[in-house]
Amino acid sequence: MIRIYLAGPEVFLTNAKEVGERKKALCRKYGFEGFFPLDNEGEAAGKSPRELGLCISRINEDLIRGCDAVIANLTPFRGPSADVGTAYEMGFAHALGKKVLAYTNVAEPFRERTVKALNGQVSREFDGRLRDSLGMFIEENCLIDNLMIDGCINANSGLLVVEEAPLNQKFTFLGGFEKCLVAAQKMMNH
Amino acid sequence: MIRIYLAGPEVFLTNAKEVGERKKALCRKYGFEGFFPLDNEGEAAGKSPRELGLCISRINEDLIRGCDAVIANLTPFRGPSADVGTAYEMGFAHALGKKVLAYTNVAEPFRERTVKALNGQVSREFDGRLRDSLGMFIEENCLIDNLMIDGCINANSGLLVVEEAPLNQKFTFLGGFEKCLVAAQKMMNH
Repeated sequence: MIRIYLAGPEVFLTNAKEVGERKKALCRKYGFEGFFPLDNEGEAAGKSPRELGLCISRINEDLIRGCDAVIANLTPFRGPSADVGTAYEMGFAHALGKKVLAYTNVAEPFRERTVKALNGQVSREFDGRLRDSLGMFIEENCLIDNLMIDGCINANSGLLVVEEAPLNQKFTFLGGFEKCLVAAQKMMNH
Repeated sequence: MIRIYLAGPEVFLTNAKEVGERKKALCRKYGFEGFFPLDNEGEAAGKSPRELGLCISRINEDLIRGCDAVIANLTPFRGPSADVGTAYEMGFAHALGKKVLAYTNVAEPFRERTVKALNGQVSREFDGRLRDSLGMFIEENCLIDNLMIDGCINANSGLLVVEEAPLNQKFTFLGGFEKCLVAAQKMMNH
């Protein structure tokens, strides 16, 4: 059975395990086996916070190595961009030749999200670029996030679903995720 | 000559090229050849913003594939965490077996940075975890960023330099970067 690693910031939710189980159930519906990043509480015994964090990282990397594909939740997390852990895992998986698909539950364009995160403190500078108060430019490539993120999907599966979540479901809505599974089913000749 | 890809958010600076040249000069000082992510303005002709962004992504990935190591600038960028492009490149390089070293110009711990970015809107919940207004927990692993970032460095080179930049030099200070080069020189039997 094709194995899919489920990357995304929903691991930080209070009901992370429940969301993970819902994602795994959807995977089964489409004939896949889903793997959710572990919180590994069972392995925490005797470990310092630091050792626990590093241990979870190792386990997640091993999970990705053992999977055929990654579906990444790129919903912006604590800033205008995707969760950095998810971004890291995308790069890791893409370099290993895994299939990488993605979705985001926020339809607002990256440029607008960034300007908002900067409280509108931006200006069009001499070089035509929109820049923040430190002079650092804001990407205006009509992409959904930093160009390395979109570039990965474009070079890999080509599948990046943008679907605005219903109110109060930003990190729990699975409509975009399910569309990734439908596409993966066709893509992977399943 | 050992080739090093120079990942970091300084590409967004007004004087990005100058900072890139300073980094490359420091690489040469230690016997390395440095490669700075390109802005590729020369290749922009006739390309739509979207195609340009995707083109830069391809060029950066090719640069990383051609390098022996990556030195990643993890200085927090528009949020409590590292630039997602840099995080992506770290995962990509680590999966390819490249040496990955990192530095950050911000010494404030990840937990404190995150609480600040959330304007202090956090509370200790029933499960003992510090959570934001959406109930999503804040990592308290005594690591410098998301555990996948620290986990990468820990499993790879072990070299993560934390050195606070002087005032107004958050994205241009190269003290931590130079320490990475000194360590790389020893590490890579150069």
